[in-house]
Amino acid sequence: MNTMIKNADILTMDDDFSILKNQVICIEDDRIVYIGEDEPFFFLPNRIINAKNKIVMPGLINSHTHCAMTLMRNRSNDLPLERWLQEGIFPIEANLTYKDVYSGAMLGIAEMIKCGTTAYLDMYYIHEASIEAISSSGIRANLSYGVSTSSKVKELGKQGAEEYCKNFILNNRKAFKGRLNTSIEVHSVYLVDENELILSAQMAKDTETLIHIHLHETQTEVNNCIKKYGMTPLQLCEKTGILENKVTAAHTVHVNDEDMQLMKKRKVIPVHNPSSNMLLGSGFADIPKMLQIGLKPALGTDGAASNNTIDMFKEMHITALIHKGYKKDSNAINAKQVLTMATANGAKALGFDNCGMIKVGMKADIAIVNTDSLNMSPYHDSVSALVYSARATDVDTVLVNGEILMKDRKLLTIDEEKVKYEALKSAERLYNLH
Amino acid sequence: MNTMIKNADILTMDDDFSILKNQVICIEDDRIVYIGEDEPFFFLPNRIINAKNKIVMPGLINSHTHCAMTLMRNRSNDLPLERWLQEGIFPIEANLTYKDVYSGAMLGIAEMIKCGTTAYLDMYYIHEASIEAISSSGIRANLSYGVSTSSKVKELGKQGAEEYCKNFILNNRKAFKGRLNTSIEVHSVYLVDENELILSAQMAKDTETLIHIHLHETQTEVNNCIKKYGMTPLQLCEKTGILENKVTAAHTVHVNDEDMQLMKKRKVIPVHNPSSNMLLGSGFADIPKMLQIGLKPALGTDGAASNNTIDMFKEMHITALIHKGYKKDSNAINAKQVLTMATANGAKALGFDNCGMIKVGMKADIAIVNTDSLNMSPYHDSVSALVYSARATDVDTVLVNGEILMKDRKLLTIDEEKVKYEALKSAERLYNLH
Repeated sequence: MNTMIKNADILTMDDDFSILKNQVICIEDDRIVYIGEDEPFFFLPNRIINAKNKIVMPGLINSHTHCAMTLMRNRSNDLPLERWLQEGIFPIEANLTYKDVYSGAMLGIAEMIKCGTTAYLDMYYIHEASIEAISSSGIRANLSYGVSTSSKVKELGKQGAEEYCKNFILNNRKAFKGRLNTSIEVHSVYLVDENELILSAQMAKDTETLIHIHLHETQTEVNNCIKKYGMTPLQLCEKTGILENKVTAAHTVHVNDEDMQLMKKRKVIPVHNPSSNMLLGSGFADIPKMLQIGLKPALGTDGAASNNTIDMFKEMHITALIHKGYKKDSNAINAKQVLTMATANGAKALGFDNCGMIKVGMKADIAIVNTDSLNMSPYHDSVSALVYSARATDVDTVLVNGEILMKDRKLLTIDEEKVKYEALKSAERLYNLH
Repeated sequence: MNTMIKNADILTMDDDFSILKNQVICIEDDRIVYIGEDEPFFFLPNRIINAKNKIVMPGLINSHTHCAMTLMRNRSNDLPLERWLQEGIFPIEANLTYKDVYSGAMLGIAEMIKCGTTAYLDMYYIHEASIEAISSSGIRANLSYGVSTSSKVKELGKQGAEEYCKNFILNNRKAFKGRLNTSIEVHSVYLVDENELILSAQMAKDTETLIHIHLHETQTEVNNCIKKYGMTPLQLCEKTGILENKVTAAHTVHVNDEDMQLMKKRKVIPVHNPSSNMLLGSGFADIPKMLQIGLKPALGTDGAASNNTIDMFKEMHITALIHKGYKKDSNAINAKQVLTMATANGAKALGFDNCGMIKVGMKADIAIVNTDSLNMSPYHDSVSALVYSARATDVDTVLVNGEILMKDRKLLTIDEEKVKYEALKSAERLYNLH
C-alpha cells in the first residue's frame, strides 16, 4: 500500500528539530520513503491524505502505562501509592480474566489512538489478551514480561515460568510486521527480590532485551530499600546487574545526585509520569536536572487508575508547566524538550530505533493535528501550540506502520461503541464482585 | 421562553454537595423554577432538552481572565512575569484598537462557551468592545474598570476619568437582564499608587462595588512593595481601605500566614490561576491551606497569553493534581473542592449571588456534559470523572440565563468561523506592526 501525505507542515522531531513547510511525504507499506517539496515521479499512491493547515508530527509515544487499567478509571482517587495499590488495585486485579484484560486493553488502545498516541510500553498481566488487542487494533507496543510471574510459577513451576518468559520474549519480538516488541518486566525492588533481580538481569543479557521497571517512585520505596539492602534502589539495580542492560525506568521521582549520575553512566532512560506522581502524592521528578546532565527522559501516562486518562497531550501540557512551577523558573523546561520526551526519546524507551521522528527510512507512525480549533486560534507557533494549547481532540488522523488507524477522528480498526460496552461490562463485573 | 431539561443527573453544587438522579428541571426565562422527579402539571415547555446519560452541572465560572488576550496566544512563552509583561505584552497592547479587543473578546467567549464556561471576570481595556461581545454572545460577565485609566485621563482629565469610571460602573451594572456586572479594577500595587488605591477604595464604597486586583502574584511584587511601603501588598490594601470592600484577588501565590489571616478577616476571595502561575515561574498558591483556614478560593485561567488556553476543565484538572504534588499528599485537595472553586465560589468572586448552583430560584447557567467519551469510560463517579477525566470537548450543551448558547457542541449565538477569521486578522496586524 502506497500512501501520500500532501501539503504537510512537518514537525520532524529529528536531531536538529527541523520544521518543514508544505512537503510531500511518501509512505511505502510501513516506511517513509520520501519527503520533499514535489511529488516524486516514481511514486504511485494508492491513497492521498491532504494535510493542509494541519501539523504532521510523529505519533506520540506513551513510555509507561498499564493499558488495561482503564477499567479502574476514577475508582480510587485521593490515596497514597501504597494504600492505592493494596486497597484500590490489587483486590480488583486478583479477579481479572482474559476477557477483562482484552476489553481494558482495547479501551486503552482506542483512547490512545484518539489522542494521537501510536506506541506504548506496557506492564501488565495476561499478556495474550493484550497481544490480541494490539494485533487487531494496529497500534505499536512493547509488552513487558516478568521472569517468574506468580501465576506462571503456580502453573509451570519456577523453571517452567522462566522458560515461558524467555519464549514469550523471543517469540513475540518483532511480531506483526515489527509492531510488537518485548521487554523484561521487573516490577520494582519492593515486589521483586534480589535473586530475581539477578535472574532478570541475566535473562535480559542472554536475550538482549530491555528491562522495564518502576524505580524510585516514592520516598517510602527508597527508604525501605535502604533499610533492607543498605543501598538505594538504583544502587541495588547496579549491584544485581540490572543496569548492565538497557533499562527504561518509570517515575524516578526520589533520586539523589549520586543516583542521577549512576543513571547517566548506565544510560538509563527515565520515564516521567507527572499526573500519576501528583495524584498519588509522590512528588515531582526533577526532569530539568536530568535534561541538564544529559539524560534523555521519555514521557508516560502511567495507568488510567492513577491518572485518570491516558492522554499524552494532557501529560505534555502538565510537564511543560509543573517544572516551571516548583523551580519558580519560567525557563525550567521548554516545549521543544517536552515534545522530544513524548516522541524521539519515547522511541528509545520502547526499543524501537526507527520510530519517533518523521524522516526517510523511519516507520510511518504519524499524527496529523488540526490547527483551526478555537483553543489554537490564532494559530502561530506549532511547537508552542501543540504543548500549551492543543487538546487530544485536535488530532485528526493517525497512522501506525503506514496503516491509517484514525481518519477525521473516526477509528478505522476499532468499533468504538463495542469497546466501551465491553469495558463497562468488565468493570461492572469486577466492582460488583468486590 | 420555557425550557425543560429531562432525565437530568444533577451535580447541584449546593452547600450539601447534593447529587440528584433522573430529575426534571424547569426553566422560565432566565431562572430555574422547578427541580423534581416528575414533570409538573403547571409548566408548559417551549423546548425540551434530553440529558439522558449526561451530567447536568452549573456552568463553570472563570474568576480571573483578560479575555481579549486570546489574540496573544502562544507568542511569549518561557519568560518570567516582569519580562513577559514588558517585552511580550505591553508593546502589543499599545496598538490595540476597538476592533482588536472585540475580535479577541469574541474569540475568548467562543472558546469559553465551548469549554462549558458561562461567566467570567474580566480585566482589560476598551471595555465598550467587550460589552458589545458580551451582549451579542449571551455569556455572563463582570467587567472591571479602573478609577483613572491612563487613556481616559488623557482624554478627559483626571476628574473626568473618575466620573467616567463611576458612570461605567453604575450604568452597566445588571445590564442585559443581569448578565453584565461591573467591578473596580485595581491592576496591582505595582501599577497603581497609594493615592489611587485610596481613591479606588472610596469609589468602591460609594458605589457598593467589588474590587478586582492582582495580588501577591510574584515574590518580586511582594519584595518591591515591602521596600517601597514597608509592608506587604495585602497590608497596603488594608491600610488604604481596599479591603473594607468586597475584594476578588487574583493569584495570591506569595502569601505568608499573617497575610492569609488578613484575607480571612476581610473575606477576600483569592482566585487560583495555576497554569499562569506555573508558566510565568511564579510558583504554587497554597490553596490547601487557604481551604483549611476557611477561605473560599475561586478558579481562573488568567489570560490566554499566559496559559495558553482559557479552558476551565484543564484548570480544574491541574488544580486537583499540583497541590497533591508539591505537598506530597494525595489528599491535599479533592475533586469536590476543585469543583466548588470553579462554580459556587466563582459566583461569589464575580458578585453574582444567584449563579454557581443548580437550585430553584437560581439563574439557569448550565453545562451539560457527555459521559460516553472513551476518556470517561467506563463512567463511574461524576465528581471524579469531571475533574480527572473529562475534557472541555465533552461539554455538549451550554445555557446562560436560560438561553441555549451551545447545543450538540454547535455555538448558536456566535459564528465560529467568522470569529476565528477576525481574530487572525487582528493578530496579524498587531504582530506585523510590532
